[in-house]
Amino acid sequence: MNIAIMGFGVVGTGVAKVTEVNAKEIEKRLGFPVYVKTIVDVRTFEGQFADRVVADFAIVENDPEISLVVETIGGVGVAYAFTKRALAAGKHVVTANKQLVAEHGSELLALAKENGVQYLFEASVGGGIPILHPLVQCMGANQIEEVCGILNGTTNYILTSMVSDGVSFEDALAAAKAKGYAEADPTADVEGIDAGRKICILSNLSYGYQTRPEVVPMEGITKITLDDVRIAHDAGYAIKLVGRTVRLEDGDRTAYVAPHLVPHSHPLAHVEDVNNAVVVRGNATGDVMFYGKGAGEMPTASACVSDAMEALAGYGTQPTWSEETGGFQDPKVLKTQYYFRIDGSLSDAAQAFHQVSVLQEGAQTAFLTEEISGYEAEEGAKALNVLAQMRVLGASK
Amino acid sequence: MNIAIMGFGVVGTGVAKVTEVNAKEIEKRLGFPVYVKTIVDVRTFEGQFADRVVADFAIVENDPEISLVVETIGGVGVAYAFTKRALAAGKHVVTANKQLVAEHGSELLALAKENGVQYLFEASVGGGIPILHPLVQCMGANQIEEVCGILNGTTNYILTSMVSDGVSFEDALAAAKAKGYAEADPTADVEGIDAGRKICILSNLSYGYQTRPEVVPMEGITKITLDDVRIAHDAGYAIKLVGRTVRLEDGDRTAYVAPHLVPHSHPLAHVEDVNNAVVVRGNATGDVMFYGKGAGEMPTASACVSDAMEALAGYGTQPTWSEETGGFQDPKVLKTQYYFRIDGSLSDAAQAFHQVSVLQEGAQTAFLTEEISGYEAEEGAKALNVLAQMRVLGASK
Repeated sequence: MNIAIMGFGVVGTGVAKVTEVNAKEIEKRLGFPVYVKTIVDVRTFEGQFADRVVADFAIVENDPEISLVVETIGGVGVAYAFTKRALAAGKHVVTANKQLVAEHGSELLALAKENGVQYLFEASVGGGIPILHPLVQCMGANQIEEVCGILNGTTNYILTSMVSDGVSFEDALAAAKAKGYAEADPTADVEGIDAGRKICILSNLSYGYQTRPEVVPMEGITKITLDDVRIAHDAGYAIKLVGRTVRLEDGDRTAYVAPHLVPHSHPLAHVEDVNNAVVVRGNATGDVMFYGKGAGEMPTASACVSDAMEALAGYGTQPTWSEETGGFQDPKVLKTQYYFRIDGSLSDAAQAFHQVSVLQEGAQTAFLTEEISGYEAEEGAKALNVLAQMRVLGASK
Repeated sequence: MNIAIMGFGVVGTGVAKVTEVNAKEIEKRLGFPVYVKTIVDVRTFEGQFADRVVADFAIVENDPEISLVVETIGGVGVAYAFTKRALAAGKHVVTANKQLVAEHGSELLALAKENGVQYLFEASVGGGIPILHPLVQCMGANQIEEVCGILNGTTNYILTSMVSDGVSFEDALAAAKAKGYAEADPTADVEGIDAGRKICILSNLSYGYQTRPEVVPMEGITKITLDDVRIAHDAGYAIKLVGRTVRLEDGDRTAYVAPHLVPHSHPLAHVEDVNNAVVVRGNATGDVMFYGKGAGEMPTASACVSDAMEALAGYGTQPTWSEETGGFQDPKVLKTQYYFRIDGSLSDAAQAFHQVSVLQEGAQTAFLTEEISGYEAEEGAKALNVLAQMRVLGASK
């Protein structure tokens, strides 16, 4: 079977490598070989795959021998246009493009269905870690109560450095850039946008409705200070950037991304460096966690190739959701403990929130509230000079 | 669609409950409802499902309306006979029965294929944690280098108690029995036999060949003392019962179960209580971990029902392997560091193993060797009065 790759950057190159390096394994599993016939990219390349590179996507679009296209362009411009054309031409499309899936997934899934092909995107969340298929397929008999996870490796690397090396956010970010873990413009990572796209995809698959990124509050890690890291650590918590989507009692749902205090007893607290982890709470299974490298050339590429194998062999299921967007509520409806660090005294804190647990007293006061809603947190904070405010992640069940 | 349950014990009851409690979710996902029409058990029951219980399996076997049977009898006697009859009658079979899958899986898979039905057993390893499908399907583009895991919740609960409460193996076992985590006869758990059956299944799926339980060395946790637990902890290790299967350089494979010193930096070190976790190392993904409750009524049942949904709807893949058994090597070929506690001095240790790292000196000496093979460990141990000997699990990659 012949496939094509659109976009010959890091992941695209990985896809070509995986099909070469593991050609024997792949053929053994499928009963037929998978061959990268054409690569679409406007740049020129050297090496093994150079002579398969073409600049014109129409060559792939009009090639009846190519039944599947791996889209590794990224973004929503050309990738969106080419994906639509590939699906319309009756070709399966496989991708790692979380932005495209989060923003236009519903439309692309409908187009795939219309044309009798699959649109698969296991690699869009957690890179090489299997999450979406297990959620939809292996946990299919569960009602999903909640999904929460460390969905961005760059920010987790930065937070790990702040904890273990005691360096500031700015220094940790510089180190992450030097190691190639952060991009020149790290906005999408450090502001929680990348994690936000992934939590949208997880929410859509968990609850069957579309959650659009623009309704999901996304907060990043740029405001976290070493003071917060130290206070949290001494109280038995790690600070992690967590994406969460929760089923509400009335069948509605919510989702958001924000830094959390994660108790050391919670499995997410031990996810270090560039690793990702997703905890899925099913009403029958309880908490199940998927953990591993959430990015990188070969892990992400191998998830794309595994999806490609599935589509070509006709096994596996199509993770999908409805185009409906109703039933999304502001995450402030959720009740959790909150962490506050204020420029003020314990009596200020107690006046605002009644019951609090003190973590630090002095010129600044740090404390945890009881379980309160986001609205109550907002109300209580009004009378305070708040320096830092974060949710506490509840215990694992 | 109508299904039947064979064996109405803990897991069988859970299967009936999951299909009831999550009936809406299941129907939404499949497009049709799943109904438990008949339950086969020789006992009599009260409650909701009592009037569906029949004693004679032939009623299910001859019922053309029943297209799938969930086998929750356990063991290899009746379960084996009824599974063969169900498959021969053209019914899909779903099970949590690791003993049957490990001992007779090849035959049953062949029989299922012959009759155009599926034999699915996601619940046989890790209970409600998705492992087998992700391994075969989502990581399908990888060559699997190694699978290792904490595969038995009872022994992990006992080891966790020994560490956190400082109680002996005997006392921890008694507590586990009192909590319902250990059976009256805990032999299969504490001697590593249950974990051994699961590592056989994981090995078969990872490498495509059959590894029979009788060739797999299985060592349990009965000889672990509080001394070892303490020495290991002080040196930065947790003691865990680990099942491992490894691809050898020549394409052969090995597998075994034994207690290991697991470094605190390894994700398996933080798996506590009755939780299970499996780390799969793919040549493209690196290490991926699956974590959660490895047993229990509802988690295990939900995995069975998810498998049933897959078979009934015709999506998903059949995890399978060849009947060939060749290529299995003794795990002594593997090279790792070893932990020894001896009745002897450091110079005795150094004479036997040359380079060692001392963990404890005194009346007894505890030390770690360099990376050596099991044969070298055996040879070196001959001259020593060995009180305890365990492998050290290598770092996660």
